[in-house]
Order: sequence, then C-alpha cells, then structure tokens
Amino acid sequence: MSSEQVLKLGIPKGSLEEATRRLFARAGWKIKPHHRNYFPEINDQEMQCSLCRAQEISRYVENGTMDAGLTGKDWIMENESDVVVVSDLVYSKVSNRPARWVLAVAGDSPYRRPEDLSGKKIATELRNFTHNYFHNAGIPVEVEFSWGATEAKVVEGLADAIVEVTETGSTIKAHGLRIIAELLQTNTQFIANKEAWEDPWKRNKIENINTLLHGALRADRLVGLKMNLPADRVEDVMALLPSMTAPTVAHLYNTDWLSVEIVVEEDRVRELVPRLQEKGAEAIIEYALNKVI
Amino acid sequence: MSSEQVLKLGIPKGSLEEATRRLFARAGWKIKPHHRNYFPEINDQEMQCSLCRAQEISRYVENGTMDAGLTGKDWIMENESDVVVVSDLVYSKVSNRPARWVLAVAGDSPYRRPEDLSGKKIATELRNFTHNYFHNAGIPVEVEFSWGATEAKVVEGLADAIVEVTETGSTIKAHGLRIIAELLQTNTQFIANKEAWEDPWKRNKIENINTLLHGALRADRLVGLKMNLPADRVEDVMALLPSMTAPTVAHLYNTDWLSVEIVVEEDRVRELVPRLQEKGAEAIIEYALNKVI
Amino acid sequence: MSSEQVLKLGIPKGSLEEATRRLFARAGWKIKPHHRNYFPEINDQEMQCSLCRAQEISRYVENGTMDAGLTGKDWIMENESDVVVVSDLVYSKVSNRPARWVLAVAGDSPYRRPEDLSGKKIATELRNFTHNYFHNAGIPVEVEFSWGATEAKVVEGLADAIVEVTETGSTIKAHGLRIIAELLQTNTQFIANKEAWEDPWKRNKIENINTLLHGALRADRLVGLKMNLPADRVEDVMALLPSMTAPTVAHLYNTDWLSVEIVVEEDRVRELVPRLQEKGAEAIIEYALNKVI
Amino acid sequence: MSSEQVLKLGIPKGSLEEATRRLFARAGWKIKPHHRNYFPEINDQEMQCSLCRAQEISRYVENGTMDAGLTGKDWIMENESDVVVVSDLVYSKVSNRPARWVLAVAGDSPYRRPEDLSGKKIATELRNFTHNYFHNAGIPVEVEFSWGATEAKVVEGLADAIVEVTETGSTIKAHGLRIIAELLQTNTQFIANKEAWEDPWKRNKIENINTLLHGALRADRLVGLKMNLPADRVEDVMALLPSMTAPTVAHLYNTDWLSVEIVVEEDRVRELVPRLQEKGAEAIIEYALNKVI
Amino acid sequence: MSSEQVLKLGIPKGSLEEATRRLFARAGWKIKPHHRNYFPEINDQEMQCSLCRAQEISRYVENGTMDAGLTGKDWIMENESDVVVVSDLVYSKVSNRPARWVLAVAGDSPYRRPEDLSGKKIATELRNFTHNYFHNAGIPVEVEFSWGATEAKVVEGLADAIVEVTETGSTIKAHGLRIIAELLQTNTQFIANKEAWEDPWKRNKIENINTLLHGALRADRLVGLKMNLPADRVEDVMALLPSMTAPTVAHLYNTDWLSVEIVVEEDRVRELVPRLQEKGAEAIIEYALNKVI
Amino acid sequence: MSSEQVLKLGIPKGSLEEATRRLFARAGWKIKPHHRNYFPEINDQEMQCSLCRAQEISRYVENGTMDAGLTGKDWIMENESDVVVVSDLVYSKVSNRPARWVLAVAGDSPYRRPEDLSGKKIATELRNFTHNYFHNAGIPVEVEFSWGATEAKVVEGLADAIVEVTETGSTIKAHGLRIIAELLQTNTQFIANKEAWEDPWKRNKIENINTLLHGALRADRLVGLKMNLPADRVEDVMALLPSMTAPTVAHLYNTDWLSVEIVVEEDRVRELVPRLQEKGAEAIIEYALNKVI
Repeated sequence: MSSEQVLKLGIPKGSLEEATRRLFARAGWKIKPHHRNYFPEINDQEMQCSLCRAQEISRYVENGTMDAGLTGKDWIMENESDVVVVSDLVYSKVSNRPARWVLAVAGDSPYRRPEDLSGKKIATELRNFTHNYFHNAGIPVEVEFSWGATEAKVVEGLADAIVEVTETGSTIKAHGLRIIAELLQTNTQFIANKEAWEDPWKRNKIENINTLLHGALRADRLVGLKMNLPADRVEDVMALLPSMTAPTVAHLYNTDWLSVEIVVEEDRVRELVPRLQEKGAEAIIEYALNKVI
Repeated sequence: MSSEQVLKLGIPKGSLEEATRRLFARAGWKIKPHHRNYFPEINDQEMQCSLCRAQEISRYVENGTMDAGLTGKDWIMENESDVVVVSDLVYSKVSNRPARWVLAVAGDSPYRRPEDLSGKKIATELRNFTHNYFHNAGIPVEVEFSWGATEAKVVEGLADAIVEVTETGSTIKAHGLRIIAELLQTNTQFIANKEAWEDPWKRNKIENINTLLHGALRADRLVGLKMNLPADRVEDVMALLPSMTAPTVAHLYNTDWLSVEIVVEEDRVRELVPRLQEKGAEAIIEYALNKVI
Repeated sequence: MSSEQVLKLGIPKGSLEEATRRLFARAGWKIKPHHRNYFPEINDQEMQCSLCRAQEISRYVENGTMDAGLTGKDWIMENESDVVVVSDLVYSKVSNRPARWVLAVAGDSPYRRPEDLSGKKIATELRNFTHNYFHNAGIPVEVEFSWGATEAKVVEGLADAIVEVTETGSTIKAHGLRIIAELLQTNTQFIANKEAWEDPWKRNKIENINTLLHGALRADRLVGLKMNLPADRVEDVMALLPSMTAPTVAHLYNTDWLSVEIVVEEDRVRELVPRLQEKGAEAIIEYALNKVI
Repeated sequence: MSSEQVLKLGIPKGSLEEATRRLFARAGWKIKPHHRNYFPEINDQEMQCSLCRAQEISRYVENGTMDAGLTGKDWIMENESDVVVVSDLVYSKVSNRPARWVLAVAGDSPYRRPEDLSGKKIATELRNFTHNYFHNAGIPVEVEFSWGATEAKVVEGLADAIVEVTETGSTIKAHGLRIIAELLQTNTQFIANKEAWEDPWKRNKIENINTLLHGALRADRLVGLKMNLPADRVEDVMALLPSMTAPTVAHLYNTDWLSVEIVVEEDRVRELVPRLQEKGAEAIIEYALNKVI
Repeated sequence: MSSEQVLKLGIPKGSLEEATRRLFARAGWKIKPHHRNYFPEINDQEMQCSLCRAQEISRYVENGTMDAGLTGKDWIMENESDVVVVSDLVYSKVSNRPARWVLAVAGDSPYRRPEDLSGKKIATELRNFTHNYFHNAGIPVEVEFSWGATEAKVVEGLADAIVEVTETGSTIKAHGLRIIAELLQTNTQFIANKEAWEDPWKRNKIENINTLLHGALRADRLVGLKMNLPADRVEDVMALLPSMTAPTVAHLYNTDWLSVEIVVEEDRVRELVPRLQEKGAEAIIEYALNKVI
Repeated sequence: MSSEQVLKLGIPKGSLEEATRRLFARAGWKIKPHHRNYFPEINDQEMQCSLCRAQEISRYVENGTMDAGLTGKDWIMENESDVVVVSDLVYSKVSNRPARWVLAVAGDSPYRRPEDLSGKKIATELRNFTHNYFHNAGIPVEVEFSWGATEAKVVEGLADAIVEVTETGSTIKAHGLRIIAELLQTNTQFIANKEAWEDPWKRNKIENINTLLHGALRADRLVGLKMNLPADRVEDVMALLPSMTAPTVAHLYNTDWLSVEIVVEEDRVRELVPRLQEKGAEAIIEYALNKVI
C-alpha cells in the first residue's frame, strides 16, 4: 500500500463524538478511541482518524493536515475555510428543529432589530462570523469573544447582546433573553480538502464513505416488511404499497399464496397494517435495517 | 382533521414508564417526554398522551378525561372503575411469575388462614379492595391505609397483617413474613372509556393500537430463521417445522436447492438447528423481528 | 428426565461474565444471575450453570465437579489441568491484539533476555506457569506470587521482573517497564471433563452448545445484504460476491429484475456497495444477523 | 433496668431521615439504621427507635405504639392526632423561608380567592385538612386525594386547584401556577403521647432529649471567640460584646494582658473583628461548637 | 539529614486505606496518594510511605523493606512474620463486634466441631494459618486456597467447610452456613522490623507516631465541656465530674462565678447536662477534640 | 443603606469555585449559588457577588464592572489588567508545588532552550503572555491559540511546542513531552479596581474581607493546644513553645498545677508532644480552629 492511499479523516470530539461513532459503525467502520493516544483505531487500512475539536477541524482540512472531516457549518464559516462541502449530514439533534445561531438581547431591553445595536457590545463564541455579519450590514458594533456561558453575559450586564446557538430557544428564554434575529442555520457537514478532492483515489474514497454514511442515516427511519398474500390479491395490495423500492415477490411452498417483501418508512407501518389485513395479508413481520442505499 | 379525531391516552408514570415507552416505540409510536410539559409528544396527530400515576388512570378513563389508558388491573379494581378492558398486556416483569397481591403475616405468628385475622389490623396501599375482600368473606377486620414500606409494619408491631404486591415473594420472605393467601393476580391492562368505545372512529383507533402493541410483544420471543435445502429434502424438513406461519420457499440460483424462511420461537432454535443439519440444511441464519402480526 | 441428563457448566465470574452472558443469549440461552444464589438460572432444563473464578474453573472441570466450562487457556496451563479442549472462543477483547503474558523489567535496568534474570526475583499471578517456564529454560529464578498491581512491584523495588498479562502493552509502558519476552498467548477456551466427553448424551449436548456459540460469534461480523438486479447482470454480479453461502435469488413481481440475497462480512460491505452499484444493483439493504450456522 | 424505663421514639423516614440522624448525633445519640431490621440501633439503653413515614408517626404516638416522635405539624393536623407538642424544631430547610401548604391555581385562570373555587375540584395529599379548611370557610368543594406530582394536575386539566407544600414557591411557579392563599405553615415538631407525658420517668427523659436537641441546633449558628487584651481595655471591649453568655476572663502569664473568651453568633464575627482590633485585641481565634445549652 | 533518619512505613491499600489516612491526618500527618506514583507524599521529611496490600505488609516489615507498618493481626499470623507488635489500633469497624476468622459449614451438614472435619476439604484465604491450626489440633484436613467469594464454596459443593472473616456473621448466615468454631480474633496492629526497633532514632520515631495515633483515636469519643458556675457550687459539681483529666477553673470577670472546663466522654454528656443544670451550671458549651494525649 | 455601600465582588467559576466558597464560609460569608441566576446569594447586604470565568475577572475589575475579585495571577498578566493587587491567596492546590506555566516540547525533539524554537509554532491558552515573552526575548515564533487538550497538539504534529500550566509536571510527562523552560509561577490573587481602592468605604470593606480570608486560611494549618503543667515547670515549657500568640495560663482548681493554652502549627504538634511530656505536661488536648487573626 503506497502512502497516497491513506485518507486522513477528522472526527469531532465532545458532544457529537458518540453519535458520530455510532453513525460510522452502522456505515461499516468501527472507530475505537485509544486511551492515551490521539489517533483512534479504525478498521480500514486506507483511513486514519483524528479526534479534534469541531472548532478546529475545518482549519486542518483546509491546510491539508486532514484530507476530509465532519464538522459544523457554523465553524467552517467562522474559520472562513476554503474547503469542498461534500454533503450535509443531519443527525443526533435534540429536537426536530435545526440548530440556529441567533442574536438575543435582554427581554426588557429596547432593542428590536440588529440595527438597534449600533455602537453596542456583542458577546459570542462565533466572533469572526458575527463581525462579518454586522460589517456587511453596515452596523458598527463591538464583538467580544466569550469563553462560554454566553447567555449569562447579558444578564450580568457584561454585554448588550449575544450571538449564541440554540435549537428550541429554551435556554435563551430561561435566561430572560429575547431573540431578535436568526443569523445562521447550521448542521454537520462532510468536508474535503481541495487538493484531496482532485486526487482521484481520495475523491473516490470520500464519495464511497459519503454513500455509506447516507445509507446508514436513511435506514434509521425505514424497516423491512414481509407478508403472505393470496395470489389473486397481489394487484390490490401493490396499489397500496409505497414505491420505496420494487417489492420482492416469491411463491409460498405448495400453495397459491405469495410472499411479498418491501421497504417502508417505519412511521407508515401502523396505518398500512390494518389496510393490508383487510386485503387478506397474513403473517406480517417487520424487521430493522442497517443500511438502505 | 376534526377535533373528534384525537384519542386521549393515559400512560403510567414511574416504574412502568420506560418499558411502556419502549413497547410503543416497537409498535411504531415514539413518545417523547417534554421537559416542563405534561403532555409528552407523540408522532401521531391523531393521539394525545398524558403521563399519570397508575393509581389514578382508571378514574380518568372512567369519567372521560381520557379515552383510553394503560394501568394495572389491581388499581382498576381498587377504584371500582367502570371501563372497557380491551386486552391484557404482559410485559416488563421482573420474573416469569405473575404479580400477586398477597395476605402476609409474621413468620412466627399463629395465623394460617384469612379467617384467623378476625378483629385484627391490616395495613395496605389497596385499602378499598382489601376492605371488600374481607367484607365479602364475612371476616371483620380493621384496614389501615399504608403510605409505603408496608412489609415493615408487621415487624414493627404496627399491624397484624399486610396486603402487598409481590412477584417472587422474596421481599416478603426477607422481612420474615409468611404468605397465607393470594387475593389477586394482576397485570397491565389496556382500558377504554365506555362512550369512546361506542364511537366508531375511536374504537377503530384503539383496536389498531391494540393490534400493533400485541404485534410488538409477540416479536419479542420470535425470530426469523432462513436456510438452504436440497429440493428433495423439503418435505422432510417441513414436517419438522413448527407451523407458526407458512414458510416462504424460493429456488436458489442455478441449483436445485431451495431457500426456506420461517418464523419460530427463539427458545426452540437451539433444538431445531441440529435436526435441520441432519436433514441437510445449510447456511442457517437467524435474525431479529420488530413486529409479528 | 433422568439425572444423567443434566450438563453442569462453569461460567467465568468477573470481567468476562457480562460478555459471556451476552454470547449465550445470542446463542439461545438466557442466563440470569440469582441474587444470593450461586447457580444462575438458565432457560434449559438440561443444563445447570455455576459462576466461578476463571482461575479455578479448569480444576473443577478436571475433577468432574463440572462437566464443561469456559475459561482462559492461561489458567488451564497454570493449573496443568488434564481436560478436553472443545474449541477456542475469541470474544470481548479490548483490542484486536491477542492477550499475552509477558516478561517485563524496569525500563532503565540492564536486563535484555530471560537468561539475564538468573538469580533474580520475579513477581506474577501465574506462579506455576512462570516457574515451569524458567525451569525448562534452565534459568534459576525466585518466583513470587503477586496479589495484584503487579506492575508497581518493579517500580517500588519489590521485584526484579514481572510476568503479567497485556493486550496493547500500554499499562506496562505507563509504569516505565520494558517487555523482554512473550511467554504465552491466551484466549477463552470451551473445555470438557474427559469422562463427560465419553458419555454420548453429554458429548452431544456439548457439541450442540459449541455449534450455537460459534454460530452467534460468526454472526457478529456478518450481515445480510439484499439487492435488486436486472436479470442479465446476474452472472456478472455473482462473480463479485464472496461465496459465504449460496445466494438466494427470486424474481421481482412483473419485471425481469431479480432479488438477490447474500450473507457477507460486514467489513466488506463498504467495498462491495460501489461495485454492485456499477453493475446496476439497486435498492441495496443491509440487516443484522443473530446467528449464522 | 425495668421495662418501663424504655422510651419508644419515632423517627421520620425519607427526606428528613439523614438530617434528623445528624441532629441526634450532635445531641449525643448515634442512631444506626439496621440493614434488614426495623428498629435502628441507638447508643442509649433507655431508648428504642422506629423509622416510620412522617405521615403515620402522629397516629402511632396518639395510640401509644410510640411514646414520642418527630414529625411535621402538617401531618399531625391531617391526622387530627391528640398529642402533646413538646417543642418546634426548625432544621434542614432548603431555604430560609418556612414550609407552607398553599392553594394554587392555573396562572391564567380567573380564580383570585378561595371562595372563587366554590363547586370546583381540588387535588392534594392533605385531603382531610383541606376538606376541613373549606368546610369551615363554608365553601363547597370536591377534594380528591392525589398520589403525587400534584402540581401537574392543574396543567393537565385534571383538577381546578391544588393544595401543595412549598418553601420558595419555585416549583409552583415553574408549573405556571399562581398561589392564591396560604393555608398552613409547617415545621418539624417533637410530640409525645399524653399518657407518656404524665409518667414522670418518661417526661423527664423526653425533656432531657428536648434540651440536648435544642442545644445542638443552637450551636449550629454560634462560635467560640477568644482573644488577648490589655487589662485597661477590658471595660471598653466588654461594652462591645453581645451578652450571649458571661465572658470567661483569665490573666495571661507574666503580663498584664487578659484572655477573654465568649460565645457569639457566627454571622456577627466579621463585624466584631475590626472593632476588637481597634480596641487593641490580639490573637483572636474562632472555634466551632457542638452544643450550647 | 542523614539517610538513617528516614522511617519507611507501610500503609494498607484498599478497604482500610481511607480510614487509615483519616487517622493519620488527625494525628498530624497528611498522606496524599500520588496519581501515577507508588509512594504517597507525606508531610514529614523523616518518613516515607508505601501503599501496599494488607496481606503483604508484614513480609516487607519482616525483611526490612519497610521499618514499620499497619496491617491486620490475621495476615501477620498467616505470614508467620517475625516482627515487633508495637500496639493494637482498633478503628473503622463496621459493627461494635471484633472481626473474627471462623470455621463455617453448611447449615444442614452433620459437622458440629472442628474434629468432625477430619479428612475433609477446607477453603480459605488464610491457608497457612488454617493448616497450622488443624495440624496443631491433630486433625488431618485438606486446606485449599480460595481466590475469594469463599462462602459460596460450601454452597456450590466445592468445599466441606470454610475459614472466613466476619464481624456480625450476617454474610455467613445469608449463605446458609453455620459457624462451628472461632479460630482467631483480629484487628489492625502497628508493627516494626526487629532491627529498626533496636535503632534508637527509629524506635523513638515509631513510639512518637504510636503516641499520636492513640491520641487521635482517644479524641474520637471525647469532647471538651465548659460551663459557668456560682463559686459556692464548685465543690458539689466537682464531685459529679468524671476524673478524665483535672478540670481547668478560672474566675469570670467581675463576678464570683467560675468557668470550669473538662474533657468527658461524648456519650456521658447527655446525662451530665441535666445534673449540671440542677447544680446551677449555665452557658454549657461542648466542642470537638482532635487529640487527647 | 445608600447604593455606594455595596461592594461588587467577582468569584471564579469552575475548578476553584467550590474551594473559594468554602474559604468564604470559614471567613464568615455564606455564598449560595442560585439555580438559574448569575448573582449568587450572600449573607451580607453590603456585598453583591458574580460568578465569572477566572480568565475574564481581571478585565471586569479593571473596567469597574466589579469593585474587587479573586482570580489567577496568570490571567491578570494575560489580560495586562491595570488593577490593585490586595494580596496573594494560596489555597486548594493539588500538590505542594506552585502552579507554573511551562514551555514543553516532544521528548525526542532536538529543542533544549526557548531560542531553539525560533520560527516554530507554539500552541497555548495563554496567547498574549506567550507572545510577549518571546517578543521580549527577541525570538520570533508563531503563537497559536489552543482550545484545550494542548498537550496532545505536539503529539499529533499540530504544534512544535506548547505553553501549558502544571503543578507536578505529570500530565506533561504522560504525553511524552519535555519541559525546557518555566515562564511564569501563578496563584490566586485578591484584586481591586483602582477607583474603588480610593473610595474609603470600599477600601475599608475590601481590607476587612482580606483580614478575614487570611484569618481563615491561617486557621487551616493551626490548632489550639491545651495542657496541664506543674507550676514549677512553666518556665521550662514556655521556652519550648513557639511564640505564635501569647499563651493563656490559668490555675487548676485546688492544686498548684497550671492550665496552659496556645495556638501552634498543626505540623509541629507531633514533635512538641514528646518534649512537653518530658517536661511533665499532662492531659494534652488539641482542637481545631475556624479563624486566627
């Protein structure tokens, strides 16, 4: 194996680490963190993983320290990293709403719009992005880097406004703050270094990983459904079945019944079942899927 | 969707809550408890869930506050609630033995039968049921409501006997008590309000939920089994196979072997496998099931 | 059932206990530890389980207290037990490297080879084996039994060398020690008493357990893969597919596509998928397996 | 020791148990809970302890099962127990505010005063007390026993109001409820059976326990303070010192300085120190106290 | 500081470690375990500590690796170590009963006395001691070393009797065993190497440590008590006071009252207080002690 | 109370928070963190507390947002804050060695002195200070801010050297790094805003807090020691006693013995005791202190 045939991949440390490892496991790669070692083991000789802060990954992908990586769209923008965005990967969210960086002020303050903050102090972990946002809008503000617990800054009188990430807004509200603008929606992205993307072997490897990650994500909300049907009902039933993939139909041993097997959304099974029973379906079984590609 | 088309369902809080949520998940409904909200979210616009003490659910189903609910048979009897029992749901038990409310006394006391307790004091959380039991048997006793830790009452000399729930009897024994009668066997029941049961839309919804809950429970002890067989052995093998559902038989590519797929009880697989091997079965695989209906 | 028809099986207590119980569960036997009882419950009337230290099991199998058991090859050798080794069972390892008993010395000591330790003191939990090893090599040493925390002994000046088990060597290194020889590779073994092995009923039962344990272990690294294919591509695709078991091929309803189902190593799926897609495969799904026999 | 010379004392189980045990320890009695025994061990042959639910203790003190006990004033009133209240013991509170049973309604409901609830349903664990309160006020209401999680009842529409205990009101507010009346302030009380109180030996024992419990409680907020002073400043300093107890004054060895030792409230030390220093005090030391009687 | 002036002290690792460290802290030595180091830090340049298994300490003290150590009398006897026993240190016991090594058999076995075990198998962690015991009694038995969970051995039929340590006997009983003899009472001992004991500097250091450890143990059950008294009552009160140490009596400022301070057993305070109050004592305060020598 | 009479105090959040709260408690101020509120409650109407990152406090004290605060000397220098340093407060350290910011490189790298790093990349959380350090030394380096896990950076090849805080150096060594220079020793400092320091009321309040904090810190290593002595030995003993504060001497009741009470360093007690015993001291008791001023 020549040295070009290793893809260096960055994996985010911390809150997304466990969910990312589970996603890769379903996709076919087992990533094992090494106690006392910074390169987790991966069961693929063509890959080498690094665990790294989400904030730093895009920098390392941009400068070629890593060929590819998973990180948040927010930190890619904060770092103004010049990388290839291979795809969006939406997983492990607390709620069903997207994560958003919002501009928030004290609930009883007079500020209603971003322009009301002209001349004011804004605390955020996303300093660069926030600075660009207000600069482009022609609103002069002072942006101060926050080491965390940003919501408390306004309450303590240490800042006039904050730019902070939230899904449901509940932490913001619990601090008595009011959201006055949404600056950015974010999610995990799979990114690649520009040169690595031009290298045919690496690009092929990256695209293969991408296919399998999406196959694993898709399988999360799908199930296999299998049932027995009288042969003369098969047309009726076919009309009912959602066309996710072509059904597999086989003859049952020594009868004129058929076995029909399909892939459907797990959420739809509960309404399909009574309608299938009406049509004469029997022995309906449901099983879980690892991947659907 | 009109407002009649919402089914209000009561889910028991506490020890059964987690197991109930897992059962509904396998049946196709994801129930997410809301932090600071009393109506957990459910991924079905036709349903609304309430989390409620098992002791109180039958009262609310009876008076129509809820259309249906899951709770223990014991608390339905304690409350003397006039409701429709849709089905028994047996899940999440500590042992393989049913939960029973028993009458227990000190191990070294002279009491051998319920009638020996005439004129004595009995502590229990199931006051009403216990009172009725002894009243119907014509045995005069004093029934005292216990706020918990009931087994200790006899040891401390605060009561002469207790009526308490147990599966294996081990907590009773560990307190040095002796069981002298079993008053009631209990399990979870799916119950409905009498008027809701007469409403065709609600009854249909309740029956659909019931079908899928039982499908999920059944799948817990069943597996899919698949094997390859020489075509001339198929009759022999069919004779061996338990007739849970009709087997699915398909021809293997370019050979005269067949593929046979069945659903069997997981516990029987270990004895089936050597007999199938004797008959010439190869490539036997077993997989898990989510639902069997 | 006559009393000869019970097989007494020893299960290792402690670090391997949970993994062993999970392995048996997948094989079809549910072992439930009894609080305050030393014979865990097992859902098979023909078996009786004992939980026992791995260090002691081979002694009990040798003397017939147990008919069969699971334990480490290292402790079988330490005890010089005369038993039948039914098979090697490799599971639940921390890393992908085998567990090894190594000879280690202080990093800054002059010792380079076992013979340099002539006349020195060696601490180990595997006293007998170590004594034999040096005796057979004609190197006179003093072997001292260690109660644990063996690595610290050299650091504290309490021994000149240690013989200790390790997978990655990292704990050894973290104590500043240097490995100078590997004395033994070890793994779990399924062993039987010699007389039990001659009893036809017991031997048959042991072989049946062995088949199902290996079936469960094999399923751990295999998955089911199913796809739809144009009929004219089936020969091309067959050439690609690893010959684990014969594929199951069925016709899709009312088309000239085929459904193909195979069992493959999970690790190979990620490279198979792009090649299958090139050949025209669609609707590729992957599912998990409990057993493959 | 004759059998009359044992005092049977009830100790509340659960949330107050640990704090009660610590209070008795500082007072001089070590109470050790017995695993599998209902009478905790106490290092005083003249006493016998029972651990019991706070809700039930006053019933057992009233009927003579226990001679004395610690429990909440609220449960004494709920049970309408006819007992002697020896003293109030205020300890282990979450906040500095007293625990109160309050009447609370939905924040957006029209109810402002108890009389607005005429004809409504009220859920509470304190059913008897609540019934009496409204009955005496001439307001007809339906009082329903709540098995817990009472605050949720109003939110879920299962009750119109609740009567619940609170210190800071924050749980009430967090559920969106509004307090419209305070029905009862409560705290722990030391109570005695009426006959036991007439028995000279028991009454003396109860009063001795009471003295030492209060001595331990008092010591919690007091400290010993000791300092050296020039003899001619002693009058000035005496004027400053709070007269908690008479100061102990001693001569320092071979000088005309004095040593002065007093007992003061811990909270006052920080303001006393600079004033003592101004007066010439030196070597000021502070130490903790176990009891002050 | 010359090298002879360091005393090497062994401290038991594991269950007694925390209690031992707390005892030394009250005696005046702070022992801090080093993460990644086997010599805990101690705030005394004249001492060096090692953490070591209780089972091994007497061996190291005997051979001079350590000058002194704390360990159980049982393990000193098991190792037949020839050391100086400086003193017995009784601390950190679960119950008030001494720890004993007992001979136990199955509850339903016929064995009543040690001699009934002639020719039988005995499992124990204290192999050497047990062997000597039976040898000296002229009873031939087979003694087998047990790796732990010894009580289970009899239940599982792996031994006829066990020799095991117990305080209350409850674990023995919980396993259905019966104690038929007590072989040894044990407690922690402070031991010294024989040569170290002859070295005047080391012996002096060891005796100093011994004095302070006992001073700390004694203080655990004593308290300081201080009160104010009218001068004319002092004789009466002196007669009441236990003569632990001579009382300190001082005059109160500008009155004819006296301040009296004594050291008494904590357990006696509760009976002293009412009698002191009767005699006119006021402002009684109690405080804790670190050491009493 | 006018509004000028409130002192705004910053308390460090995180690792020092608990130790700081305990220090203030011993000094006489109880700081209670408010759930969901950023101003912890303090039992002094003249003070208002804020919990804040140690990194940020000096900035807020400099600009007057806070009047005074506790934070690390390192972060005061990093922020180049122009504040009054009231005193150094040394508490809650892991070891007895001071915390130091050191320059560390890979163990096997060629770098030996700071100047060897000319042109290299250095990762640190103390970016500003590090930049100044190298700038003043005339060594051109690239200083990169690190988000944490800094030690790993050199191992992963992401930096040539790091500047990181350490007490014992053990984490540095565990990563295979080598310290080549110490750049800064640090500890907690009590700092004040320059204007607040000029305000007489605030300065007086700050100095009062400072006195009591140091009184509490001093008491940590001191104890009270009390003993009885024959009157004729008092001169001999006085010569032995460390002159921490003047001893308190009182006559013992009806004897010619004296009671002597002193304050000494806890560490010295163990050597004082045998010498006091030689001089005839008896009934030596030791007790703990809260404050020594």
